Amino acid sequence: MLAKTKTMEITVRNARKDDMEAVLELIKELAVFEKEPDAVEVTVAELQNAGFGSNSQFMCFVAEVKSEIVGMSLAYFRFSTWKGRTVHLEDLIVTENMRGNGVGRALYNRVLEYSYKQGVKRVQWMVLDWNKDAVDFYEKSGAEVLKDWWLVEMKEESLKKFIEEQS
Amino acid sequence: MLAKTKTMEITVRNARKDDMEAVLELIKELAVFEKEPDAVEVTVAELQNAGFGSNSQFMCFVAEVKSEIVGMSLAYFRFSTWKGRTVHLEDLIVTENMRGNGVGRALYNRVLEYSYKQGVKRVQWMVLDWNKDAVDFYEKSGAEVLKDWWLVEMKEESLKKFIEEQS
Repeated sequence: MLAKTKTMEITVRNARKDDMEAVLELIKELAVFEKEPDAVEVTVAELQNAGFGSNSQFMCFVAEVKSEIVGMSLAYFRFSTWKGRTVHLEDLIVTENMRGNGVGRALYNRVLEYSYKQGVKRVQWMVLDWNKDAVDFYEKSGAEVLKDWWLVEMKEESLKKFIEEQS
Repeated sequence: MLAKTKTMEITVRNARKDDMEAVLELIKELAVFEKEPDAVEVTVAELQNAGFGSNSQFMCFVAEVKSEIVGMSLAYFRFSTWKGRTVHLEDLIVTENMRGNGVGRALYNRVLEYSYKQGVKRVQWMVLDWNKDAVDFYEKSGAEVLKDWWLVEMKEESLKKFIEEQS
């Protein structure tokens, strides 16, 4: 498949509103890969409303091969009390049959270029501990993997229960 | 100290611009507790610029006892590709000599109340795996601790190096 890799033309560009349907398909594909197929509650309309306009809540890049969307990355700003403004890479997804062709790398580069141009002091993201290929890729690129932090979350139902018990 | 606990009046309110000096002191105190005393690069001016006005990058609450700031919590919105808008609790800090008096709980409640009113589907934060007291507190309140995610970060210097090598 080396010939294919060499000749494949990958275009990464800013996502448009009308890409959100394809983007949602990729999000759902990743949820299956991460063994949580039913976790995706977001809709095309929510992505379109949240990602565009003057108060957009994220930036999204898409990768195209032969005018078809085969991958996406989605990131937003966070505020670190140590570093100030930082970028958080929420998702980077390449559709399964296009993996290993440099699409993921192209999307990754684009997010890091964007972050660099914005002058942020740090880019962060999360990776599942069993996703060895991803961890290797990130470490080779100069990122550090911090294994001593745990992620804590309170979901909608628990939040509701907590609030009700307080009052 | 039970009597003290019972009579101590804790006020939690939205932070104002002129609280940012006290807030930065708390941030620095936490960095020492987390064994990274030199990691804090943020300044009072940055906190004041980033946290207030129409494009504020975070919301901050402060806890006062006898008109003195003894704790703070700082949170902001994130965008989950599964859940849509969520709240991320970046920091919750109580000054050392005031711990164990309910100040942390009051700040925690306030962030969760705020999140609930905003109608978000999830609140997330990170905890160091050795901070057993915090982990117990969070779990008792209904939060889940996810131990299979690793945090990945690319710092400023590595980002610069990465970009230079690409071009």
